[in-house]
Amino acid sequence: MSGQGEFALIARHFAPLTKGVPLAFGLTDDAAMLKPRKGQALVVTADAIVEGVHYLPDDPPETIARKLLRVNLSDLAAKGATPRAYLLTAAFPRDVKEPWIAAFARGLKQDQAHFGVHLLGGDTVATPGPATFSLTAIGEVPGARMLRRSGARPGDLVCVSGTIGDGGFGLAELRQPHPDLTDAQRRFLIARYRIPQPRTRLGPSLLGLASAALDVSDGLIQDLGHIARQSGVGLSIDAAAVPLSPAGLAIARGDPPARLRALSAGDDYEIAFTVPKARLKAMEAAAAKARIRVSVIGRVMKGQGVTVLGPDGTPFEAGPGGFDHFGR
Amino acid sequence: MSGQGEFALIARHFAPLTKGVPLAFGLTDDAAMLKPRKGQALVVTADAIVEGVHYLPDDPPETIARKLLRVNLSDLAAKGATPRAYLLTAAFPRDVKEPWIAAFARGLKQDQAHFGVHLLGGDTVATPGPATFSLTAIGEVPGARMLRRSGARPGDLVCVSGTIGDGGFGLAELRQPHPDLTDAQRRFLIARYRIPQPRTRLGPSLLGLASAALDVSDGLIQDLGHIARQSGVGLSIDAAAVPLSPAGLAIARGDPPARLRALSAGDDYEIAFTVPKARLKAMEAAAAKARIRVSVIGRVMKGQGVTVLGPDGTPFEAGPGGFDHFGR
Repeated sequence: MSGQGEFALIARHFAPLTKGVPLAFGLTDDAAMLKPRKGQALVVTADAIVEGVHYLPDDPPETIARKLLRVNLSDLAAKGATPRAYLLTAAFPRDVKEPWIAAFARGLKQDQAHFGVHLLGGDTVATPGPATFSLTAIGEVPGARMLRRSGARPGDLVCVSGTIGDGGFGLAELRQPHPDLTDAQRRFLIARYRIPQPRTRLGPSLLGLASAALDVSDGLIQDLGHIARQSGVGLSIDAAAVPLSPAGLAIARGDPPARLRALSAGDDYEIAFTVPKARLKAMEAAAAKARIRVSVIGRVMKGQGVTVLGPDGTPFEAGPGGFDHFGR
Repeated sequence: MSGQGEFALIARHFAPLTKGVPLAFGLTDDAAMLKPRKGQALVVTADAIVEGVHYLPDDPPETIARKLLRVNLSDLAAKGATPRAYLLTAAFPRDVKEPWIAAFARGLKQDQAHFGVHLLGGDTVATPGPATFSLTAIGEVPGARMLRRSGARPGDLVCVSGTIGDGGFGLAELRQPHPDLTDAQRRFLIARYRIPQPRTRLGPSLLGLASAALDVSDGLIQDLGHIARQSGVGLSIDAAAVPLSPAGLAIARGDPPARLRALSAGDDYEIAFTVPKARLKAMEAAAAKARIRVSVIGRVMKGQGVTVLGPDGTPFEAGPGGFDHFGR
């Protein structure tokens, strides 16, 4: 994992991931070159994951790699950016076996093809601790119109893509299978946890339509709190309008609090955004064109924090560890 | 180190590092925007460091941070790029104390001012293992003229900036003080190990002059081997011409093999490059203007690998673990 061994590993498993990208120089240089296309600005984001903290030690290496790439592509998508390339630094445990690394690289290769991105550079080191990966993703937005967290205005509608809570339900399934689920539903939830679906086609189509956006990674309510804070507004969310998947509904049917857990569970990697009412129709057309389901789940008000309304229109009580620390 | 604690840490220690950089959005968004100046291409590079592997656990946090930033700026400099910004992902041990993080951030702040770069984004996570940091540095080159490893041609001269071996001697000093050194020399060598001097002013001035370049991080001979391989040439190095610092000379005086150790020790962070003879005078003028010492240490030949010539002009014998695995 150092010296000549490191170079051989990079050449065998990672250099092929730069194929077709002349400015990555096959990882034979210490750096790569990058030029945004005419009229585009670059958007950059970085995330780190640690074995045993962000993924389970026995998760398949392919899905660890794909999730790492996808959570970064999700950040780009929520900013309206089209993904282009990424840099990866990998700290592999000293006793890592080469097939593990090969599988990890295969996962990246698979998703590179799917999302049209390429490895641009990085670093490989050995660690006496848990495997630790850091990925810097680079995308492009036309002009300098990156979607921000700070543009929500009172009167705007709050929307979310896809379904919420599946990632959290999937993680729970890995720990303790839920008796009400079919095998297919169980597999669906685990796949949603392990292999998020970054909304890379929806995000860029929201440019000029959404007033604020972010990706849902730490839990819908907590993340919406960032939009509230950065925009200086309050958000009112209708709990019943938050879309659950059929598998999520199967859980919530016999266990109503599961619907609330879905609102605070992480690993959704959907886009939560606000849109002025006048642009709702245009946004719905854009989402239909991207073939991504979008649901209106609430509205922006004067004030601060995130309020969750129950089925009867009254705010949920906030117990200890509940929603109150998001401010109301 | 997670949830609200992470946000507070970022706000207190890392958000101030984005001051004056509107497109970093004070780290309040998940991503930052970046536009190269007109006519410039971006150059990107990434390095990771692990506690106990790349630095000593009791190294001062300021110098760990500064070295991490500087080794990446050194990569950019060797490509001819002017540094602009960086992203940082930090995996802090769960029991890290906030003063340690504050000191780490102070080190970054100090070097940001010195090198004219800014934090653009990143991620902060907790790890049960050793502290692990990854830094992606972004620079600019005019046109698309990044210096490569692959342009050396037979007849070119091999050059190196500054002095070689100090980093390795400095690391040795931390383990076992050398009896022949003054206190000032000892401090100088340790500082060279802990706080490398990336040649950010020399690098860009070599554009259009050097035919190949890289920064010396893994040992001069090993790194020159990359230029030989990527350029398809052989390099002949005159050991006596490789510049040592006064402290390095003080060690080599009573211990001649130390001169050879200097050639294979790491952590120099000087620029090694090749230059066509016709451009030697122009290169020397550029180096003088950047106020960086440059020494001619050898020449490029047909063939392959790196040959080190002793004082009498004959190649050194390659013992076990010696120079032979770099190819001759």
